[in-house]
Amino acid sequence: MSRTQPAGTPLGDAFHVYDTTLRDGAQREGISYSVADKLAVAHHLDALGVGFIEGGWPGALPKDTEFFARAAAGELTLRHAVLVAFGSTRRAGLTAAEDPQVRALLEAQAPVVTLVAKSDRRHIERALRTDVAENCAMVADTVAFLRAEGRRVFLDAEHFFDGYRFDPDTALRVLEAAMTAGADVVVLCDTNGGMLPLSIAEVVAEVAQRTGFRLGIHCQDDTGCAVANSVTAVQAGVTHVQCTANGYGERAGNADLFAVLGNLVTKLDMPVLPDGAFGELTRTSHALAEIANIAPDTHQAYVGASAFAHKAGLHASAIKVDPELYNHMDPEVVGNGQRVLVTEMAGRASVELKGTELGLDLAGHPDAVSSVVATVKQREAQGWTFEAADASLELLMRSAMGEQDAVPFTLESYRAIIEHRADGVVMSEATVKLIVDGERLIATREGNGPVNALDAALRAALTPSRPWLEDVELSDFKVRLLAPGGSGAGHGTDAVTRVLVESSDQAGSWTTIGVHGNVVEASWLALVDALAYAALRLRGAAAAAPVSAE
Amino acid sequence: MSRTQPAGTPLGDAFHVYDTTLRDGAQREGISYSVADKLAVAHHLDALGVGFIEGGWPGALPKDTEFFARAAAGELTLRHAVLVAFGSTRRAGLTAAEDPQVRALLEAQAPVVTLVAKSDRRHIERALRTDVAENCAMVADTVAFLRAEGRRVFLDAEHFFDGYRFDPDTALRVLEAAMTAGADVVVLCDTNGGMLPLSIAEVVAEVAQRTGFRLGIHCQDDTGCAVANSVTAVQAGVTHVQCTANGYGERAGNADLFAVLGNLVTKLDMPVLPDGAFGELTRTSHALAEIANIAPDTHQAYVGASAFAHKAGLHASAIKVDPELYNHMDPEVVGNGQRVLVTEMAGRASVELKGTELGLDLAGHPDAVSSVVATVKQREAQGWTFEAADASLELLMRSAMGEQDAVPFTLESYRAIIEHRADGVVMSEATVKLIVDGERLIATREGNGPVNALDAALRAALTPSRPWLEDVELSDFKVRLLAPGGSGAGHGTDAVTRVLVESSDQAGSWTTIGVHGNVVEASWLALVDALAYAALRLRGAAAAAPVSAE
Repeated sequence: MSRTQPAGTPLGDAFHVYDTTLRDGAQREGISYSVADKLAVAHHLDALGVGFIEGGWPGALPKDTEFFARAAAGELTLRHAVLVAFGSTRRAGLTAAEDPQVRALLEAQAPVVTLVAKSDRRHIERALRTDVAENCAMVADTVAFLRAEGRRVFLDAEHFFDGYRFDPDTALRVLEAAMTAGADVVVLCDTNGGMLPLSIAEVVAEVAQRTGFRLGIHCQDDTGCAVANSVTAVQAGVTHVQCTANGYGERAGNADLFAVLGNLVTKLDMPVLPDGAFGELTRTSHALAEIANIAPDTHQAYVGASAFAHKAGLHASAIKVDPELYNHMDPEVVGNGQRVLVTEMAGRASVELKGTELGLDLAGHPDAVSSVVATVKQREAQGWTFEAADASLELLMRSAMGEQDAVPFTLESYRAIIEHRADGVVMSEATVKLIVDGERLIATREGNGPVNALDAALRAALTPSRPWLEDVELSDFKVRLLAPGGSGAGHGTDAVTRVLVESSDQAGSWTTIGVHGNVVEASWLALVDALAYAALRLRGAAAAAPVSAE
Repeated sequence: MSRTQPAGTPLGDAFHVYDTTLRDGAQREGISYSVADKLAVAHHLDALGVGFIEGGWPGALPKDTEFFARAAAGELTLRHAVLVAFGSTRRAGLTAAEDPQVRALLEAQAPVVTLVAKSDRRHIERALRTDVAENCAMVADTVAFLRAEGRRVFLDAEHFFDGYRFDPDTALRVLEAAMTAGADVVVLCDTNGGMLPLSIAEVVAEVAQRTGFRLGIHCQDDTGCAVANSVTAVQAGVTHVQCTANGYGERAGNADLFAVLGNLVTKLDMPVLPDGAFGELTRTSHALAEIANIAPDTHQAYVGASAFAHKAGLHASAIKVDPELYNHMDPEVVGNGQRVLVTEMAGRASVELKGTELGLDLAGHPDAVSSVVATVKQREAQGWTFEAADASLELLMRSAMGEQDAVPFTLESYRAIIEHRADGVVMSEATVKLIVDGERLIATREGNGPVNALDAALRAALTPSRPWLEDVELSDFKVRLLAPGGSGAGHGTDAVTRVLVESSDQAGSWTTIGVHGNVVEASWLALVDALAYAALRLRGAAAAAPVSAE
């Protein structure tokens, strides 16, 4: 076997950052990794510097078998991490060597095998339908067999905390069977996720004291405490922590790798990643969300787009003077950034700060700052909300600084028609009449709604002169009805509609806003901003163009 | 002052469940509550049985001032909770009585005032630019003034944990100033959110031991540990816990009310809610997400749609036999469901339960139950969500029981036109063609948008025979684009649009839903349900007609 110890982290093998995104994380509802996805996930995790990557369950899941085969064939070159195959102990009544599932673990050619075993007597008797002695023999035999074949072996003690509470002797006998047969670590699993931190600390300390074994932790998030439970277990003495990217996993999920790493590194001063890797935390989180095809959680600790976003008007001016008083850490350390949300409470300080964030030097344009503050206040009083629409805010700032519009056209008129016909078919059609580069253009298109049809007609008119618009996609829109001041739900004819449009191209996404009494006109305003911002991005001027979600 | 103590929970005033969704939760990026939204949120929280509802900062934010004024004028009747006004201590150099911000707190007429005060010497000196003695005088004066005016006072000690680590004496002096002047509780705030559970436990225990004061806890989620930190603080001795619905809040958010309640009730056996309320946890979480116009987190602990969802695999068959081995608790306890079983009995049970809640005896109509279960399942797969639209669900149940439609008309066709004319005027016009009571009716009306115009045309056709429709008003609508399965943000042409329409008459309001590829057709479906439900209400048949927002 080649390397069986994580390289490159200052702590070496003394502490294991163990990722199970590809096995336990894949249990999350909605995730379905292809083999290519799995290889890409492993590359990202390795680049971040985790010590162990559990790649799946070869023999049980065909995709996982293929993943290990392709990894072994050279499609996966790891710089930091060691690949781990996950599987079960031998079945009752077979030797380990005879059990095809155990053989598949060997054939996966991963240097490490993690075996899952039952440690709760109720599960042994009611689910496995065997007894404690046979369960321990299954553990010992399988560990010994894999050790003899040169594998390093970790044991996941499933339902450990529930089992230990119910019958501590059985739970400890299972751990002992594994360690005596040559396992390196026994991992205490809160499989049903019902634990709280103080009980985790108590059990970990007690088991460590009673056994002296090297212990690991694996937490599910059913109490919303998986991250806290994992970190608390480390404080109580475990030296191996199992997590998944962004907390993906069955039910409420697993412990989020990025929050656990953030806490170990910045709160407990444990250098568990290779030098320089910690700054990749945010980027890695977003990249793995993209591969999973799940929108990144904007409010995720450490790595969320809003994790360092400040809204409170009170704080904004103080933040400018003294940022460290208002953040628990410097966001740059994890590759994240501080954002200031410009809202109706904004003053000059937050607008300037926001300008800096967007790469615009407003400090040298005091008149532009005044104009932006006045426009934001006036528009927010009418129901606009710029905190959710950075792209519209940037266009407004650039316009206040005297920049020309990025999509120069004049609207003459548009018309949208929606019909529910007598045959039951619902159709939408829109016509736009524009002056583009001095020329009058008319375009009509159908769509699956009035906004979609207008968007199509607008693009039809503009794309001949601006072919790059083809890459821009309307990816989401949100609509709310508001009273004119935004101060009550809208009633009758005085209500206004607020539309937020999210657009994307291959490199990222951005959000624009429109507010009007008519939902279609509000959408139109947001659409026009979306295309103007796309033009800015194209010429490389758009600030801080986000690599993933905005 | 009237009631100043939470009623109805077995623990009475001995333990405070304190919600700050309307104040600190509103700091979340993207949330912008109208006053009507705030009243609706307060109703939901009160129905769940929280002890205290922090309504906002009167005097600082016009919407919050209006919220307290409308609450005081009778628009908010609370059964369980006590309303709290949040604000700051007096400014340096003024008496409390002279300070307009403090006066606004009195004018809000809430029985409880929570004052925020700095307890970190660095913030006192660098942000407030005063000294510790003056800061303590500001606390003492303001507490004493409000006490003399009959208010109960709680103190939020901002940045307490960071401040206590930096300079414990200053932090404790601030607490003492408040308690000596008559505050009931001093709340230790982890304002920057950088704490971990074991340190929380240590500081709470130490402060309790050194002061003997009644302590509260307020945690932000920047380490992903806000829920764990809050629960750990309770175990360490605090008797007042501040949370927000779904963890909404600035940056990574606050401690999620529902996870904290789930843990206190099911893990620590603390009866902190009124009898019977705990089963409303899931419904309340989802309703508050809809009001905030934020997609519910499907993987949220306790209340997420996936929180008890088991993906096919190892567990699936064992769960059927022995569900309690694979869940940390019975999901029904919090009004949630185990998803693998929804396909069988649980679906029928929840439909029957919901029918009972709506006053419909479905138990005697097994075929109707089957039909409702099938329709709900099929529609939810297409993006409908009946949790947020009780009125549409009730119509569906009544229809399955064979009741005639309350607004009997047949749609022949409709057409809506939106024009942005060359003179800059935006206009909408809609025509409906209906068969009503055997007669073909055509009506055309203008509106401030296509939905408003359609609504007007539909009423114009129906009102001659149903004059009571004049009292019904479309008061809010919310739109979201969804992927076909309803499982995420929609992309491209295969997306569907979900419209929630809130309607009201003089006696209350109700919510209906429509889902379609075309936003106008989706709105039409919701509008038709809204009028049908209005007809039910008129004849007194509508069950449990909610007095305010649902």
